[in-house]
Amino acid sequence: MLGSIEAGGTKMNCAIGDEHGNIFKQAQFPTTMPEQNMQQFIEFFQANPVDAIGVGTFGPVNVDRQSELYGTILDTPKLAWRFFPFLQTLKANLNIPIELQSDVNVAALGEAACGAGKHDRTVLYITIGTGIGGGVVTDKQFLRSVQHPEMGHVWIKRTPEDTTPSNCPFHTDCFEGLASGPAIEKRHNTNAKNLPADHPAWELEANYIAQGVYQMMLAHGPDRIIIGGGVMNQPQLLPNIKRNIKTQLNGYTYYPALANLEDTIVLPKLGDNAGLVGGLVFAGQIKKMK
Amino acid sequence: MLGSIEAGGTKMNCAIGDEHGNIFKQAQFPTTMPEQNMQQFIEFFQANPVDAIGVGTFGPVNVDRQSELYGTILDTPKLAWRFFPFLQTLKANLNIPIELQSDVNVAALGEAACGAGKHDRTVLYITIGTGIGGGVVTDKQFLRSVQHPEMGHVWIKRTPEDTTPSNCPFHTDCFEGLASGPAIEKRHNTNAKNLPADHPAWELEANYIAQGVYQMMLAHGPDRIIIGGGVMNQPQLLPNIKRNIKTQLNGYTYYPALANLEDTIVLPKLGDNAGLVGGLVFAGQIKKMK
Repeated sequence: MLGSIEAGGTKMNCAIGDEHGNIFKQAQFPTTMPEQNMQQFIEFFQANPVDAIGVGTFGPVNVDRQSELYGTILDTPKLAWRFFPFLQTLKANLNIPIELQSDVNVAALGEAACGAGKHDRTVLYITIGTGIGGGVVTDKQFLRSVQHPEMGHVWIKRTPEDTTPSNCPFHTDCFEGLASGPAIEKRHNTNAKNLPADHPAWELEANYIAQGVYQMMLAHGPDRIIIGGGVMNQPQLLPNIKRNIKTQLNGYTYYPALANLEDTIVLPKLGDNAGLVGGLVFAGQIKKMK
Repeated sequence: MLGSIEAGGTKMNCAIGDEHGNIFKQAQFPTTMPEQNMQQFIEFFQANPVDAIGVGTFGPVNVDRQSELYGTILDTPKLAWRFFPFLQTLKANLNIPIELQSDVNVAALGEAACGAGKHDRTVLYITIGTGIGGGVVTDKQFLRSVQHPEMGHVWIKRTPEDTTPSNCPFHTDCFEGLASGPAIEKRHNTNAKNLPADHPAWELEANYIAQGVYQMMLAHGPDRIIIGGGVMNQPQLLPNIKRNIKTQLNGYTYYPALANLEDTIVLPKLGDNAGLVGGLVFAGQIKKMK
């Protein structure tokens, strides 16, 4: 039996299942203080013993297995979690192999192994929701980089008409600051869900998402691009994003996946389960490693 | 003995040496027709036998070892080279293990193994010259992606004063189109070398380079960033680039290498030899793989 943990800004999820991503049992707790949430995870896995656990957590977090701070949350605005030794605390209380990655890298692994990227080699997964983030997986393996990407903070060019301040506390014009769900809400003074499908807000949103995705395509060379998150529940967005990326490439389709964007860019298949499924696949890899 | 090939748009270089990147003998030919250049490489390695060859070539090129088109040049504006089977031609004539990567990925490996990134884990290498490109190496291994990055075509925000058309045939506002050597020349009607160190052109150039490097930092999470290429021979550029990236991050220093940019971003150490040295290191890895 394998274990999975998905630590989010508002909810904590954990599950047991198998290396194919099948979930047998799961639990959810609100995100509160780190000590309380850790105790909940520990009790869950004491009651449901597993051979290994794959963890995906909100970041920034140290994901360098060779670092002394591996598994420690970094400089997050969630003050109680700042520099909290997430992985170390779990390991000290559960005597099994546990490894940790960023939430979006683990969700990318879930979609790459069991979802919309199942038959592909390099999968770029980008989620557009309360925040914006992205992960990359090749041959079901995480990026080797010492730090996880922070794709939500790359630059976006505003349209001249868009004068709403960015929703990012650091950047006036970044992807997350202009295109996340709360950024849409700030611009239109209403929840994005209340904007009709033909509202010009969605044209702007497709343009901004396309800019962010375009940059990460060129940075990573994927053959599959999966765009998920709550904002993507608007069905009019995906075709508009593809059209915008084609315009941006302007014929610069240097490898086949780019020439064939209509098929290359897809929605996720695992919905809200991508993180937990990815954690189980990760746990299967951890078990084999040991 | 190991071999190295560096295929550039104007010059072809090859060398023999060891896995530590020591070059014992080298040769150079002008880039002409593919058949002629291949014959020159083959004759060089027939006269100087080696156990394995690492190739770095201009792109776009298929670098996916599992593809039938691995080692084939893709849709390049150099018409004679379009879809030329570079690796296949070498392999058919030299009965030794040969592998191929993009020129900038191989130069990144050279700098990561033997140059300015020798003591670092994830090295982002960006070259600003006639073109702009970048590569990433972690623990002396290439990115796993099925395609090499094309960092030269990410978006740059122009300053309002800059109205010179882009030098890229595809994109009005990309990194290469606005910040390569020929882009500077187009903007100021003179070779970049003729512009004095206090010319405002260098402020603009530092701003543009910083934008491109910033995006690739967030995309790849490196702990060392090396910026090379002919344009970087202007000593006033590097400090200005660092200052601009700090302004762009605006406190978003989510992991230590970003908080410490003054030390993280450096010039290359191998100069024009990065590609050939990288090819030798690559050849050493190929020999061990077989």
